[in-house]
Amino acid sequence: MRIIVIGGDGYLGWPTALHLSARGHEVAIVDNLVRRGYDNELGTHSLTPIVSIQERIAVWKKLTGHTIELAIGDICDYSFFEPFFCTFAPEAVVHFGEQRSAPYSMIDRRHAVYTQTNNVVGTLNLLYAIAEHAPDCHLVKLGTMGEYGTPNIDIEEGYLTVTHNGRTDTMPYPKQPGSMYHLSKVHDSHNMMFACRVWGLRATDLNQGVVYGIDTAETLHDPRLVTRFDYDAVFGTALNRFIVQAVCDMPLTVYGKGGQTRGFLDIRDTLACVELALNSPAARGEFRVFNQFTEQFSVQQLADIVVQAAAKHGIGARIDHIDNPRVEKEEHYYNAAHSKLIDLGLQPHFLSDTLIDSVMTTIKMHMHVVRANLVMPTVKWRN
Amino acid sequence: MRIIVIGGDGYLGWPTALHLSARGHEVAIVDNLVRRGYDNELGTHSLTPIVSIQERIAVWKKLTGHTIELAIGDICDYSFFEPFFCTFAPEAVVHFGEQRSAPYSMIDRRHAVYTQTNNVVGTLNLLYAIAEHAPDCHLVKLGTMGEYGTPNIDIEEGYLTVTHNGRTDTMPYPKQPGSMYHLSKVHDSHNMMFACRVWGLRATDLNQGVVYGIDTAETLHDPRLVTRFDYDAVFGTALNRFIVQAVCDMPLTVYGKGGQTRGFLDIRDTLACVELALNSPAARGEFRVFNQFTEQFSVQQLADIVVQAAAKHGIGARIDHIDNPRVEKEEHYYNAAHSKLIDLGLQPHFLSDTLIDSVMTTIKMHMHVVRANLVMPTVKWRN
Repeated sequence: MRIIVIGGDGYLGWPTALHLSARGHEVAIVDNLVRRGYDNELGTHSLTPIVSIQERIAVWKKLTGHTIELAIGDICDYSFFEPFFCTFAPEAVVHFGEQRSAPYSMIDRRHAVYTQTNNVVGTLNLLYAIAEHAPDCHLVKLGTMGEYGTPNIDIEEGYLTVTHNGRTDTMPYPKQPGSMYHLSKVHDSHNMMFACRVWGLRATDLNQGVVYGIDTAETLHDPRLVTRFDYDAVFGTALNRFIVQAVCDMPLTVYGKGGQTRGFLDIRDTLACVELALNSPAARGEFRVFNQFTEQFSVQQLADIVVQAAAKHGIGARIDHIDNPRVEKEEHYYNAAHSKLIDLGLQPHFLSDTLIDSVMTTIKMHMHVVRANLVMPTVKWRN
Repeated sequence: MRIIVIGGDGYLGWPTALHLSARGHEVAIVDNLVRRGYDNELGTHSLTPIVSIQERIAVWKKLTGHTIELAIGDICDYSFFEPFFCTFAPEAVVHFGEQRSAPYSMIDRRHAVYTQTNNVVGTLNLLYAIAEHAPDCHLVKLGTMGEYGTPNIDIEEGYLTVTHNGRTDTMPYPKQPGSMYHLSKVHDSHNMMFACRVWGLRATDLNQGVVYGIDTAETLHDPRLVTRFDYDAVFGTALNRFIVQAVCDMPLTVYGKGGQTRGFLDIRDTLACVELALNSPAARGEFRVFNQFTEQFSVQQLADIVVQAAAKHGIGARIDHIDNPRVEKEEHYYNAAHSKLIDLGLQPHFLSDTLIDSVMTTIKMHMHVVRANLVMPTVKWRN
């Protein structure tokens, strides 16, 4: 299959591109490399030493013989994206190419406007490119479980059947996102649903949970293939951050009470889910939503698990409850469906000491570069 | 009350500004005059001869002694909007300042991106201005009934109480908008709801139906105070267009079967609704949604009403069913709640021959400027 991976230089985009390339697909990465730019802006960095995208691709080619095409540019710039899209003529597009940090989007007005404009316009351009030049192309788009918020009823996969005043309809599941970033994904979802309905496009929205882990089968081939790993308060996801804190003898920082419950998944399952979606594409006109996570944990549970795993490494980790910089419920009902990817054949990697062990080992190799001041939150939802 | 009317040079913004000024409020109009620019772009024009915003305001001042402040600029440009907002220090903002045509948003990719960027960024800037500089300020924002689409259950006012798997929650009403423009309003609604929840802002979202009519108590004072009146296929609303077609001896163009049912209201009720919302502001942290229309009609019913009214003027109007340029259900269930504004005291002007008569009289005065080729739809939802 000819597949464009947008955002193929990022934490998940890069290992996904390798995974698809390893399976014999013709892969092109489109990326404006802005994720590296955020690091420059914030003074943050990947804990793992990542090489340039050009070197990554060259190493992969040398090791495996597989060519990954590269187009450096911004999908918000249609004069760049449209001709590339037409020339490559993809059968599928995997779209990771969005600003994906909630705290980054909440820094100030400018970052909120940037996040929503960047994400919404990029996806609109992609929808138009598909509609105008490759209407049969399957769009696999990364959404987020955060689109749903924390309603007091079960979360379903994209749609909800409602009976009201004696009549019944199946409608888009109501969205209550918790940041300017999460809002941008909700906007994308509405735009995509419309494009599928009106233009007959085929799209799969992967409402992904919080991803943890570093290594995948492909990145392990060579140290230069490692993906980025963020431990800072802006781009680091919860479990990744906790493990770094444990290894570096810092307290694990739980925001508020820690009862915030979310869906989580292993980075290897992200790759598997994308592949499963690609192999069973949505029908023409179908806007399909998969909830992409394998287990639910509260933040407190996650911290407790890391403390236990650290103990086996002789680390006496402890937990600090700090003021919650976000505005969110700290104790709430949470029960989200996530059976559609299992039905397609996903075999989850559940969170285990083994995974945490391997991440700890990697982190230990790089702990000398950890800058402790990056871990504490500085972006607040309320001023 | 100190009130900013954003989009105060438009079809509804202008009479709203006059209405509030007449009631003794200190009114400032913020407008980038882009509506006049769309006319230049499309070769369209207001059927009523509108004078410049500067002259409108000068005439109003001379007639009534009331000063309306004017700031010409784009709310998407925060370096313009923020200082004006701070200096004027509004107690309320009425926000009409968005690209409001569904066909305009569907012209092509560029117009879709423009519409969503313009509307979403403008409203984001406004939310940040309020949060940072006047958190007690009440935002009255024009939404649209088109946000809901045409679900198979009753439409409620912004929220829906759902019982699912034995648990109950009240959630945002699911949105299924029918154009890139309507989508932009859905994005706005989500952004506003978040801002109210997180920053404690107070906002009223007026999900307005299709507005008809020309004259209001204030615009009737002087011909130079008349508001714009659009009859073209891009900016003209259904009833307004039908009346022009009848007067000008053109067939009334019903799209498809004509079973498309929507909420409608008289332009004078728009003014009354905005005033009612301002006089009973939302509470701090409250995101309140009012469905702002007074009657439901199908497009076919509306056309039939115009044919009957025209007959009394000796006009033998006829109806043409033309290919529907939009993608929408042409026969569907539609029952939308609209009691909250009635509860606040709205006394509706129902559609009657009297209203159509008065609009017909105005149109007859200007029928020599009607350009027939502007009435037929050229923008199609599908290529």
